[in-house]
Amino acid sequence: MRTSGDFSLNDLPGAGRMDVACRCVTSSLLLSHGIRNNISLYIHMLGEPDPPKTLLFKGDHMKYLSPDERSTASLIKKALSLKVSRSWITSTPGVFVSRLTLDEILDDLSEKGEIFLLDEGGKDIRNVELKGDISFVLGDHLGLTSPQKNLVRKKCTECVSVSPLSLHADQCIVIVLNELDRLQEERC
Amino acid sequence: MRTSGDFSLNDLPGAGRMDVACRCVTSSLLLSHGIRNNISLYIHMLGEPDPPKTLLFKGDHMKYLSPDERSTASLIKKALSLKVSRSWITSTPGVFVSRLTLDEILDDLSEKGEIFLLDEGGKDIRNVELKGDISFVLGDHLGLTSPQKNLVRKKCTECVSVSPLSLHADQCIVIVLNELDRLQEERC
Repeated sequence: MRTSGDFSLNDLPGAGRMDVACRCVTSSLLLSHGIRNNISLYIHMLGEPDPPKTLLFKGDHMKYLSPDERSTASLIKKALSLKVSRSWITSTPGVFVSRLTLDEILDDLSEKGEIFLLDEGGKDIRNVELKGDISFVLGDHLGLTSPQKNLVRKKCTECVSVSPLSLHADQCIVIVLNELDRLQEERC
Repeated sequence: MRTSGDFSLNDLPGAGRMDVACRCVTSSLLLSHGIRNNISLYIHMLGEPDPPKTLLFKGDHMKYLSPDERSTASLIKKALSLKVSRSWITSTPGVFVSRLTLDEILDDLSEKGEIFLLDEGGKDIRNVELKGDISFVLGDHLGLTSPQKNLVRKKCTECVSVSPLSLHADQCIVIVLNELDRLQEERC
């Protein structure tokens, strides 16, 4: 995905498939009439012209997020237009940007709890024990590269799958969250 | 949702939440690298200025469908710009439009198989027997009106729910299809 804010809101696919990022944001954070305030989404971007950049969307701080792709893309465009440093800076409420690498993000996440890699060949998520403050890693339309996959595998508990078919990233996120919502409901 | 093609692709939410329709189309029909050729999606539209209009997206005939909202909206815009009669006319491959009423659509669907109403108070979809050529009815961001709900209830087998939380229509579709994909996989 493009790593500067100079893309057109009228051609999100042309910006390195920025539409994929937008849908992942809304799938992760939006409920029918609210925001998932216990979810954070990291989008690690490696496209031209200024990689790496990592966006962080935090549900508990989020404002101005609407369900349509174009308005989500506006938030991303604004974040990618900022001058970025190693540490997180705030773009709009709930949207942060940094130069963190995949390795650093994974280290950060592994301190919080278990990490799972979404992989079509993985164990069915319905048969995996999910508890605590967990994270899921998944690729965009191109998938993770082999080195990226190896890096995640070293730090993850297990590879999990959500469907017998190959789905879009945002669809996978919906299914993962449905599983977590059901578990949460059972525990209450 | 707006029932003419004169809406702006730059403001889909402003066109009676046309963005909701777009996401329902892609959730219903798109896999990661393909189209669900055994799925049909009906979108029954009652907004101004020319209601009712019903769009039909048929996976087995579909062409030119991309994952981003804007390109799906282009297909809808084209279909809503056509002169519409009682019977189906083709807009682009896989996209059809008519003046069919909800009652007529339900009659058509009930001849093919069972109908289920997606409802937050319904029985968990994981505990419902799903077999044959089935249909699911769900509302947009405003939900079904009481008369619409009563009409569907008369013709449906059961009310089913997909989540303990209130989700967007496109998210519900992803979860329903995941359930059907899993059943299909089990049967094979």
